Amino acid sequence: MAKINEDLLKERKKCSFNTAELTHLLDGGKDKTLERRSREHFFLDDPELRSKIPSEYLSHKEKYEEAIRKSCILFRKVQELQEAGKGGMDNYREILGGQLGSAILKDGNPITLHYVMFIPTIMGQGNFEQQAEWIQKAWTCSIIGTYAQTELGHGTFIRGLETTATYDPKTEEFVLNSPTLTSYKWWPGGLGHSANFAIVVAQLYTQGKCHGIHPFIVQLRDEETHMPMKGIKIGEIGCKLGMNSTNNGYLGFENYRIPRTNLLMKNNKVLPDGTYVKSPSSKLTYGTMIFVRVVLVQDCASYMKKAVTIATRYSAVRHQSEMKPNCPEPQIIDYVTQQYKLFPYIAMSFAFQYSASWLWDIYNNVTGELESGQLENLPELHALACCLKAVGTADCAAGVETLRLACGGHGYMTASNLPSTYGLATAMCTYEGENTVLLLQTARYLIKIWQNKKNIQKLPTVRYLDNALFNNRSYEKSVSWILSALQQVAAAKIDLANKHINDRVRQGKAYEDAWNETSIELVAAADAHCRTFLLDIFNLTVNNFQLISPELKAVLTDLLELYAVHTAIRMTGDLLRFTNTIGKDVEALQLWLEELLAKIRPNAIGIVDSFDIRDEVLGSALGAYDGNVYERLFAEAQKSPLNQEPVNKSFGLYLKPFLKNNL
Amino acid sequence: MAKINEDLLKERKKCSFNTAELTHLLDGGKDKTLERRSREHFFLDDPELRSKIPSEYLSHKEKYEEAIRKSCILFRKVQELQEAGKGGMDNYREILGGQLGSAILKDGNPITLHYVMFIPTIMGQGNFEQQAEWIQKAWTCSIIGTYAQTELGHGTFIRGLETTATYDPKTEEFVLNSPTLTSYKWWPGGLGHSANFAIVVAQLYTQGKCHGIHPFIVQLRDEETHMPMKGIKIGEIGCKLGMNSTNNGYLGFENYRIPRTNLLMKNNKVLPDGTYVKSPSSKLTYGTMIFVRVVLVQDCASYMKKAVTIATRYSAVRHQSEMKPNCPEPQIIDYVTQQYKLFPYIAMSFAFQYSASWLWDIYNNVTGELESGQLENLPELHALACCLKAVGTADCAAGVETLRLACGGHGYMTASNLPSTYGLATAMCTYEGENTVLLLQTARYLIKIWQNKKNIQKLPTVRYLDNALFNNRSYEKSVSWILSALQQVAAAKIDLANKHINDRVRQGKAYEDAWNETSIELVAAADAHCRTFLLDIFNLTVNNFQLISPELKAVLTDLLELYAVHTAIRMTGDLLRFTNTIGKDVEALQLWLEELLAKIRPNAIGIVDSFDIRDEVLGSALGAYDGNVYERLFAEAQKSPLNQEPVNKSFGLYLKPFLKNNL
Repeated sequence: MAKINEDLLKERKKCSFNTAELTHLLDGGKDKTLERRSREHFFLDDPELRSKIPSEYLSHKEKYEEAIRKSCILFRKVQELQEAGKGGMDNYREILGGQLGSAILKDGNPITLHYVMFIPTIMGQGNFEQQAEWIQKAWTCSIIGTYAQTELGHGTFIRGLETTATYDPKTEEFVLNSPTLTSYKWWPGGLGHSANFAIVVAQLYTQGKCHGIHPFIVQLRDEETHMPMKGIKIGEIGCKLGMNSTNNGYLGFENYRIPRTNLLMKNNKVLPDGTYVKSPSSKLTYGTMIFVRVVLVQDCASYMKKAVTIATRYSAVRHQSEMKPNCPEPQIIDYVTQQYKLFPYIAMSFAFQYSASWLWDIYNNVTGELESGQLENLPELHALACCLKAVGTADCAAGVETLRLACGGHGYMTASNLPSTYGLATAMCTYEGENTVLLLQTARYLIKIWQNKKNIQKLPTVRYLDNALFNNRSYEKSVSWILSALQQVAAAKIDLANKHINDRVRQGKAYEDAWNETSIELVAAADAHCRTFLLDIFNLTVNNFQLISPELKAVLTDLLELYAVHTAIRMTGDLLRFTNTIGKDVEALQLWLEELLAKIRPNAIGIVDSFDIRDEVLGSALGAYDGNVYERLFAEAQKSPLNQEPVNKSFGLYLKPFLKNNL
Repeated sequence: MAKINEDLLKERKKCSFNTAELTHLLDGGKDKTLERRSREHFFLDDPELRSKIPSEYLSHKEKYEEAIRKSCILFRKVQELQEAGKGGMDNYREILGGQLGSAILKDGNPITLHYVMFIPTIMGQGNFEQQAEWIQKAWTCSIIGTYAQTELGHGTFIRGLETTATYDPKTEEFVLNSPTLTSYKWWPGGLGHSANFAIVVAQLYTQGKCHGIHPFIVQLRDEETHMPMKGIKIGEIGCKLGMNSTNNGYLGFENYRIPRTNLLMKNNKVLPDGTYVKSPSSKLTYGTMIFVRVVLVQDCASYMKKAVTIATRYSAVRHQSEMKPNCPEPQIIDYVTQQYKLFPYIAMSFAFQYSASWLWDIYNNVTGELESGQLENLPELHALACCLKAVGTADCAAGVETLRLACGGHGYMTASNLPSTYGLATAMCTYEGENTVLLLQTARYLIKIWQNKKNIQKLPTVRYLDNALFNNRSYEKSVSWILSALQQVAAAKIDLANKHINDRVRQGKAYEDAWNETSIELVAAADAHCRTFLLDIFNLTVNNFQLISPELKAVLTDLLELYAVHTAIRMTGDLLRFTNTIGKDVEALQLWLEELLAKIRPNAIGIVDSFDIRDEVLGSALGAYDGNVYERLFAEAQKSPLNQEPVNKSFGLYLKPFLKNNL
């Protein structure tokens, strides 16, 4: 093992709690920690899953080819796990898309959607016969599928999709067409050159009538030759900010025919004669969408933990400038402005993890209820998932970027792994529902609830709205005061937005126009609501821990308080405007913040160590456990192909003739 | 010419003012507009300066080689301009680093520092003989130089640099060494494999004493073979978030000897016997640092204009979702939340441009004074340049990113050119002085002024502090009220931070510790001060325009007001806390904001058209003048090397064996 950096050794000695205890708590128990580590060992210690050259030096095409090589090995190993009976769906997410997956395939896995979307959609929306036919093929990976929904012209607004599937009762086939350029499928991962099958979402037409969007199983490429089928125009969409191995593709249809039975018919059916039979419970398909958003909130916690581990360790190793004349250069983690960039994001990663886990539980409850026909808790869950996805991904992306910038110039280097972590984090702001659109969906629910509070006490995430407008508690240095103040803010913002909509309607405007004109405030109201929830759950979770040591409890309480105070200070304007907070209270909050930064300082390295993220997962010269930052940066630079020869050929080709010409 | 998108045609008809008038105003006159366009024509219409394949598809090495090819052509064309007598320093910046430069070399120019840093440093810091010897070689490009200051271990804190240059009187040489790994030069552009000379900044030792950092001319590579000189360890530092053709390098020395006369000796000298002779006016070197920051504020305006042109045009072309049932999908620019993402950044680009131009003027005045030995205005200029660089680059990066996200998924595509614009913008937050460090430098000046206001009325950028604490104007709907309130906020924040430092000192803390513990508030105070300046200058500039049409004046006034209101709303907490603003006033500000968005809406396309940015400079499928967004996205995708063949070889190599094995 490499020598550990002296500063990190000292930091680790300072830590006031047992880091293993926190690791187990975060994993959900010691057995889970061991299970995770053994999974990590199984994948990360396999030399076949390593690349000779870091992918950033490869051409776009080479990156893709290397990604396919690794993905096939990865899938084979997943099959090994299945055969050993260790293949739960949880594992897939982690291996294919989570921290582990992005450690192995930094620029994305081109065939991930096979497990993440293709198989689940067939399971969720195929009828018994369809499952029998397709799941077997897909599960054993004798075909590779993707999920083609988004088009060049439409993303979040799925009703606007333009691809058509028109039923022809003569041949009992659907005829797929892309009537416009904007109707081309655009974005699906692996669609470009990897998958040979796809679920395609298209407007279903039968007997001259459109029945809205439906999912179809479509063969894209010949199973033997991989050549695109006739009537299919297919390719990749080109380079992106990040994830350049995911092989996002486009897809157009020209009178492409598929059997009637390729319409997934668990819910809605088309009979051989073309009769459309509608399912009674169309809300069932909400489930997957919410599931994906739960996973995204978990991912927010993961990315944040990764970035904050890198930046915190680097800040303990890096020395810079002088605080006092003639003293040695301090560790940059001793600058309070630096602590302010790091520690709130440590705390935030806990907030996200706890909210994600709460959301996961209610998701499971509500989907259980759905199966038995109960729908009444769905709108609340949907509203919550929307705003948590939006606020979580926005805070996560901003956090990762703040942490990257906190590493100065070295944070700009690919070798820090912060740029590509940002590339992954910021993408989440857009996919699976654009954030502003999602916040407006939450706002729509909140305004509805606000206008009719009849059953509000039955709704755990919004019942605080019943009387929060009148909280008016005088400042005290407690999380409970901050929570109460945030709730009052959320209520006041919903109330005010509602009032402004009504004012505009009274002025003669259509409700939709009034809504649009008030939408900046509506977004802010949904955001405030979400932040009360995040704090509430963090608070409940920490207070409910029973079997933890007092040392760990103290650390978690510091983090909870920091999260609360940091949130409150970011919302100073709202507190002053909507609660009876006064200027002096803000001063007190600022002092409390500074106290908390100082309290967390000695435990900062211990906390990020507890996240127990392997060096291969961090993938960062700045963040490795041993803290040999400069040695690692230098070693990474040596891998550049340009550094394999003292003089690049461009000197002889271009530079020398130019210079000589000027002599 | 391609057919223009119908929506854009309609938008252009709606415009209430003459866009050419605004173009000329922004360029500084019609002649300047023509000059710029002719320069653009000279470079952008040269087919030799185009690449066959978009650079994002190339390998890292190929990118570099293509960049050297283009750079040599670019330099040859710059020489042509020189010969034609059109070669002012302004042009170089624009051609090598500005919008034009980044249109030609999207990932950066590896030899730019030759003109931008190498030649200016010799001119500024070389004595007469040195200029005679080196400027000729450099100006004709028979050598190519770079500027090597930053090291692996030190950036903004330049006193901490570790490279040593020890004088040996026996041979009349300096001996250069890199005593540690962290002393390796790290980051200089073109250092890796391009330049054969460099200015190297090193700690000068003579007669056993260290005299601090000094600039030396150092030969890096053999002029004939380009092989690194003996004693020089050199290479590139590897991939980064952006600018991957700039060939940033590292450099280490092992007893590398250079003649005494390679120390740039305009200011300080070492005599042949080793005697060190100090210059009386060491502050002279401040000039270049401030100059670069002025240029960065101009660049902030440029990047912002580019990003906002792309996002605004896309928002006029893109239709999505439904506002009202059974109505066509609206242009997304009609969503107020979208306007809120776009229009404030249109306004902000004006604020930056006007402040940059004001800063440029005082920079010229103050450097004039410096030449005649007057130093008293330097601290104010330095403090202002620091905070403008920090606030400008931070707002610019955040703005570009907001605009990228406002383009949804398509903003994530390289073809939008928003990711690489962000890559350039966010880099500015770190280089040429890390933003937090710079804001603390401004804060140090402000605290000093606050503690001694004797001469404050002579200092135009801070004299408002004299009585701003007592402004207390009641709300009125005017820019002047907002400015007065912001000034009160800045004063109050400085006052409070000062009080908190003093409190801590009284509690027995060292001043430096008290400063550090108060630094979050100090940063916020400097930020607030900077924002008063930005608004003040924007306001003065618009009010001083005499010869413009009333239609244009009205548009500029809308933008000024939007900038003011947007700033005020972002600072709601401060207004409520430090001025006599009340909740109702915030509600009024919000309404005013919404009014302004609606007022600017019909002119939005006209304003961004007035920026007159050529399609080649925008480099964006989403932002082109013709608005053929989807056609261009599709055409860009076709350029991917992966799309040149229906089946990639990885199918045969990896995917097919995997699938077949599962049958």
